Amino acid sequence: MAHQNENKKAIDLNILVTNDDGIYSPGIFALTKSLGEIGNVTVVAPLQEQSAVGHAITMQIPLRVTEAFKNGDFFGYAVSGTPADCVKIGIRNIMKVPPDLVVSGINHGSNTAINIIYSGTVSAAREAAIMDVPSMAVSITNHAAKDFRFAAKVSNLLANKIVGKDIPLGTLLNVNIPDVPEEKISGIVLTKQGKSKWDDIYEKRTDPYGKNYYWLTGNLMEVDTELDIDQVAIKKNYVSVSPIHFDLTDYETFDKMKNWNIERLLNGKEN
Amino acid sequence: MAHQNENKKAIDLNILVTNDDGIYSPGIFALTKSLGEIGNVTVVAPLQEQSAVGHAITMQIPLRVTEAFKNGDFFGYAVSGTPADCVKIGIRNIMKVPPDLVVSGINHGSNTAINIIYSGTVSAAREAAIMDVPSMAVSITNHAAKDFRFAAKVSNLLANKIVGKDIPLGTLLNVNIPDVPEEKISGIVLTKQGKSKWDDIYEKRTDPYGKNYYWLTGNLMEVDTELDIDQVAIKKNYVSVSPIHFDLTDYETFDKMKNWNIERLLNGKEN
Repeated sequence: MAHQNENKKAIDLNILVTNDDGIYSPGIFALTKSLGEIGNVTVVAPLQEQSAVGHAITMQIPLRVTEAFKNGDFFGYAVSGTPADCVKIGIRNIMKVPPDLVVSGINHGSNTAINIIYSGTVSAAREAAIMDVPSMAVSITNHAAKDFRFAAKVSNLLANKIVGKDIPLGTLLNVNIPDVPEEKISGIVLTKQGKSKWDDIYEKRTDPYGKNYYWLTGNLMEVDTELDIDQVAIKKNYVSVSPIHFDLTDYETFDKMKNWNIERLLNGKEN
Repeated sequence: MAHQNENKKAIDLNILVTNDDGIYSPGIFALTKSLGEIGNVTVVAPLQEQSAVGHAITMQIPLRVTEAFKNGDFFGYAVSGTPADCVKIGIRNIMKVPPDLVVSGINHGSNTAINIIYSGTVSAAREAAIMDVPSMAVSITNHAAKDFRFAAKVSNLLANKIVGKDIPLGTLLNVNIPDVPEEKISGIVLTKQGKSKWDDIYEKRTDPYGKNYYWLTGNLMEVDTELDIDQVAIKKNYVSVSPIHFDLTDYETFDKMKNWNIERLLNGKEN
């Protein structure tokens, strides 16, 4: 890399950073610091933890935006809503110019296989993709992860590649990083969303007033075996990078359903 | 159809009904009544309105389940959570045997194009698909719809077809019904998810204490023109039926990204 003026960044990207663990979580702090090396970072993140909120957006109540500080310095904007809300209001109202890139994370806990559907972290990056901004979601595979340095480094390297490469509008990268020391990382692989699902269990308890309540628990039933599947890759200590999008149409079934003659359903002539 | 014993239903389906407008909404009442003609219906729906919650699930707080009554009769189970929660706990804890079919609706307001991503109604049906239960989401194209009779009739006809036909596990039908009198319905068409998106606007207001707050509003930017797109179909008074799934992998971009040589990113040899 050519020598750079110390006061000028190598690449002058305009980056929006958000997450679903909340603006005061350590993961977003590590991510912001790392991305600060390659661009100007604006943090817009939920005031409170928003795990498993999926692609919820706030419409029934208004949003509040407040300034958040870390170590006495201004850190970013805290929003009284979901990760997707943060991306929407960050781009529409908070940032003066639209970002070149949105990065969501670093999430505590992997977002692979079926978990992508429930993830607030992924939904934030997906909201950016909907708004035609290149984006990625970054997660580390441990709910108790403490060391975000390697994950932050990977985020930085990938951020550079996303902006330079030709990812179609509407597609985002879902990145999962094993929580192991860097020397134990097997490598980086391109992956697809796995088919592993949760075997849900609702644990029934009784409150002090004699009424029942239910906690969601369960076990992930792992069904995939190939290294190009996100859940398999992280188990083998690979960094997993999946391109995902928001076109939910099942084109194969669409073609098969042409035989249904669905247009005849109303007049009783369906087969 | 062969003559049936009056006390026996033509088809004895075991059906779970849910929605996102809440268990006391008129749409779920009309749907339950209509599906009661072809099966045994168990209603498990949110206690409170849950619009735009996407695929949120409740994990940070426990769920409560209470019995709900309409006109003095037992109607179903009200859950203190999201539509996806209702499907999970309905299948896992409330129903004695797993349902043959899950139907979510009838939603006030269409769920087409980008709205599918934000929809609690669609996410409930998607949760059923994740749990390998055939399902559909049904919406009527007017937030103030009053007459659900035609939508309920279409739901009944489609419910019969879904169970009898070979829809792959993991695929659900997203059904949108124009809010016009039945004689003005143009027909039924098979559709794909449209590409129309919202141009979001956050309306800034000041509360009585001098602090700002923001309401999400906006306009849907319609970009599609073909009748086999959900948003176009409903505009032309067609019932729209789209097969959708939860595999978010962008396979086309996956193939293109093989040229990224992403495996070399860490050792600085990437192109």
